[in-house]
Amino acid sequence: MASVEMIEEEAATGKVKEIYADIKESLGLDFVPNMYKAMGRNPAYLEASWNKVQAVMGRTGKLDDLTKAIIALTVSMMNGSAYCTHVYTDAVRNYGLDDDGLTEVAAVIDVYNGLNRFNTGLDVETDEKPWYGCGAQ
Amino acid sequence: MASVEMIEEEAATGKVKEIYADIKESLGLDFVPNMYKAMGRNPAYLEASWNKVQAVMGRTGKLDDLTKAIIALTVSMMNGSAYCTHVYTDAVRNYGLDDDGLTEVAAVIDVYNGLNRFNTGLDVETDEKPWYGCGAQ
Amino acid sequence: MASVEMIEEEAATGKVKEIYADIKESLGLDFVPNMYKAMGRNPAYLEASWNKVQAVMGRTGKLDDLTKAIIALTVSMMNGSAYCTHVYTDAVRNYGLDDDGLTEVAAVIDVYNGLNRFNTGLDVETDEKPWYGCGAQ
Amino acid sequence: MASVEMIEEEAATGKVKEIYADIKESLGLDFVPNMYKAMGRNPAYLEASWNKVQAVMGRTGKLDDLTKAIIALTVSMMNGSAYCTHVYTDAVRNYGLDDDGLTEVAAVIDVYNGLNRFNTGLDVETDEKPWYGCGAQ
Amino acid sequence: MASVEMIEEEAATGKVKEIYADIKESLGLDFVPNMYKAMGRNPAYLEASWNKVQAVMGRTGKLDDLTKAIIALTVSMMNGSAYCTHVYTDAVRNYGLDDDGLTEVAAVIDVYNGLNRFNTGLDVETDEKPWYGCGAQ
Amino acid sequence: MASVEMIEEEAATGKVKEIYADIKESLGLDFVPNMYKAMGRNPAYLEASWNKVQAVMGRTGKLDDLTKAIIALTVSMMNGSAYCTHVYTDAVRNYGLDDDGLTEVAAVIDVYNGLNRFNTGLDVETDEKPWYGCGAQ
Repeated sequence: MASVEMIEEEAATGKVKEIYADIKESLGLDFVPNMYKAMGRNPAYLEASWNKVQAVMGRTGKLDDLTKAIIALTVSMMNGSAYCTHVYTDAVRNYGLDDDGLTEVAAVIDVYNGLNRFNTGLDVETDEKPWYGCGAQ
Repeated sequence: MASVEMIEEEAATGKVKEIYADIKESLGLDFVPNMYKAMGRNPAYLEASWNKVQAVMGRTGKLDDLTKAIIALTVSMMNGSAYCTHVYTDAVRNYGLDDDGLTEVAAVIDVYNGLNRFNTGLDVETDEKPWYGCGAQ
Repeated sequence: MASVEMIEEEAATGKVKEIYADIKESLGLDFVPNMYKAMGRNPAYLEASWNKVQAVMGRTGKLDDLTKAIIALTVSMMNGSAYCTHVYTDAVRNYGLDDDGLTEVAAVIDVYNGLNRFNTGLDVETDEKPWYGCGAQ
Repeated sequence: MASVEMIEEEAATGKVKEIYADIKESLGLDFVPNMYKAMGRNPAYLEASWNKVQAVMGRTGKLDDLTKAIIALTVSMMNGSAYCTHVYTDAVRNYGLDDDGLTEVAAVIDVYNGLNRFNTGLDVETDEKPWYGCGAQ
Repeated sequence: MASVEMIEEEAATGKVKEIYADIKESLGLDFVPNMYKAMGRNPAYLEASWNKVQAVMGRTGKLDDLTKAIIALTVSMMNGSAYCTHVYTDAVRNYGLDDDGLTEVAAVIDVYNGLNRFNTGLDVETDEKPWYGCGAQ
Repeated sequence: MASVEMIEEEAATGKVKEIYADIKESLGLDFVPNMYKAMGRNPAYLEASWNKVQAVMGRTGKLDDLTKAIIALTVSMMNGSAYCTHVYTDAVRNYGLDDDGLTEVAAVIDVYNGLNRFNTGLDVETDEKPWYGCGAQ
C-alpha cells in the first residue's frame, strides 16, 4: 500500500477522471496504474506528469520505442526503483528483447558503473584527443 | 592529473605493454586513454578490465553498438562521471546520434529519474496486472 | 558549454519562441536560462517540462514557496547538480533564508544521509510502534 | 532482523542505559527505536549520534520543525531508506502535513530529480545572471 | 526469482560448465551462486566477470583479504544491494570481524556520508594545505 | 568559495573558538579546515559533528586507522565528494598506502559497483546457502 491514499478510479472526478480515461485508452489498459492513482491526489501534477511522459515516450523522435524503453529501464535499475524496473522489464520484453537481451543490458550497466567510479574516484582526466567508446569500435 | 601516477606508454613493460598495444589497435587510437594508463599500475586488473569491456562491448550480441553506447552514456550521466560521459557522448555521435538524439536521451533520463523517486518515495506498489511502459505503447 | 548546441532566443521560432517568452514573463527574467535553451531542441519536451515545473512550483498548494524551494535545493544537493544547486541556493535566499538557514539545511542533510546508510547498511527493521522524528519532538 | 545483534533495553548498562533513557524521555516513547539499539553496540558512537541528531533537530534554529522533518524525509526518500522514510512520513504527518502535502513533497522531488540529471547529463552551464527558482516566482 | 531465467548447473554446457566448476572449486562451494547463474546466459560476460573478480579479489596485492572485503561491503551498503551486502556481511565475519566491527564499519559510513553531502551541498573548497583525515590522527 | 560565508578563525568566539582550537590541536594543524569553518555558523552543529567524527575516527575500536580511512575514502569516492576524497586520499597515503594500494581500492570499488547493479537490476535473489566473498577465499 502506498504511503498516501490513492484516488481510485470510481472516486475520480473532473480532470482526474478525464486523464485516467486518457491513460487507459492510450496505454490500452483496463485499469489505471498505481503510480497515476497516487498522482491523482494532485490533478495539476497528474496532468503535467502524464503529458510529459507522453511528450517524451509517446512521440516519434530520433530514438525508437525499444531504445527509449531500454533507457527508462537502465535509469530505473540505477535508481533501484522496483516499480519502474518491473514495468520496463515487461516493456522491453514487449518490444522484443528476450532474457539474453536483458542480461546484456545489465552487463553493460555492470561494466560502466564500475569504470565510472574508478575514474571519478581517482580523478582521471579527460583525454586530450577524442576516442569513441571505452571498448568497442 | 589523476590522484595516482599513471603508467605512461613508454614506461610500460611486459603484459601492460601488450595490453596497451591491443587497446590502441582494437580502438584504432594512436594513444592509450588515461583510464587504462591509471589501471596500468595493476596489470592483472588492467587485463581483466579490458577483457570485460571487450566481452560486453566488442562482441555481437542482442543489442547493436549504438544501443550499448546509449546505455553506457545513460549510466555515466546517472553517476556524474565526467570522464565516461565525455567518451560516450562522442561515441553515440560517432554511431550516428545527433544533438536532437542526445537531448532525447537526456529527456528520457529526466522523466524516469523523476518518476522513480515518486514511486520509491511514496512506496507505490507494483500493479497486479502487467502493463508495458509508463507512457508509450 | 553544454554538450548539445542550445537553441538561442534569436533562433527560436514557433512554439519554442512562445514558451521562451512565457518563461521570461513568468519568472521576471530578461533572458532564457540555459536549461530551457538546451531543452529547446525538443519543443514538445520543453513545453511539457515547463508545464510540469509550473504545475508543481508555480501553484498554491499545501507547501509554501520557501518549503518547495528547500526541497528542490535538497534534491539538487543530493544529486550533486551544480546547476540546480546554484539556482535554488539563490532561490531560497530570495525567499528569505540567510547563511545560517542554508547551513541548517545542509546540517539536516548531513544527519539523515548518515543515518540512512547506517540503517540500510545494517538492515535495521522498521519499529513495530510508530515514532515521530529520528530526533526532535 | 538487523545484521548485527542489537543491544536490547534490558541488556543495556552504563552510558548506553543512560542514553536509552534520554532518548525515550526526549522523544516521549515507551521503547527505544531499533536504530539506536543497533548503535548501542558502540556507546561512544551512540552518544555522539544522538547528540548530533538533537543538536540539529531538537533545537530552535532558522527552520521550523516541519521544514526540518520535510528535509529529513526528502533525504530519506532520495536514499531509498525504508526505515527513515517510514519514521519521517509519520513525523511530517504528526507536524500537520496530510496526504496531499506528502504527494506534493514527492512531486517536487520528481521534478528536480529529473531536471538535475538533464543538466548534469548534458553539462548545462550555470547562467551568467542569477534567477530565482527553476519555475515559480 | 531473478527477472531472467538463470542457467542452472545441470543445463550448463561448454565454457559455462567449465566456469561453474572453477567457481565452485575456487570458492569451496557445492553450488553455483545465483549471480553467476544469471550471468550464465552470456558466456563471454560470465567468464570476463569471474576473471575480473579473481584478478582483484583473489590475488595478493597491497590490501589484505579482510580490507578488500570491507571495501566490497561498503560499496554494497552504499548501493543498497541486498545480494552483495548479504554475501559480504558473511565474508567479513568469515575473515574475523564481529558485530562490533560491523557496527563500526556502518558508523564510519554514517559519518562520511553525512560530511560528504554537507561539503558538496555547500560547495566547500579544498583546503590549500593538506591535512590527514577528517578526524583521527 | 563555499556558498555560505565561513566563520574565519579570527572571527570565532566562545564555543566555536574553543572547538577550532581543539580541532587544530587534535589534528596537529596550524589552520582550521574549511569544512569546520562552514559548520562554524552553527555552533551546536559544529560541536556535535566534531564530537561524532572523534567518537568514530579518533578512538581505538575493532578497525585500525588505515582501515577506517579506507572506508571513509570509499564512501567519499562513491558520493563524488571532491573535498573528502582529497582529504582521505592524503590520509590513506599518510597511513602507508601507496599509488598501487590506492589503485587497488579503486579496483575493488569498480568490481562491486558493477556487480551490485547487475544483481539489483535483475533482482537476483540471495542464495539459500551462505558463501564468503563474491570472489576470493
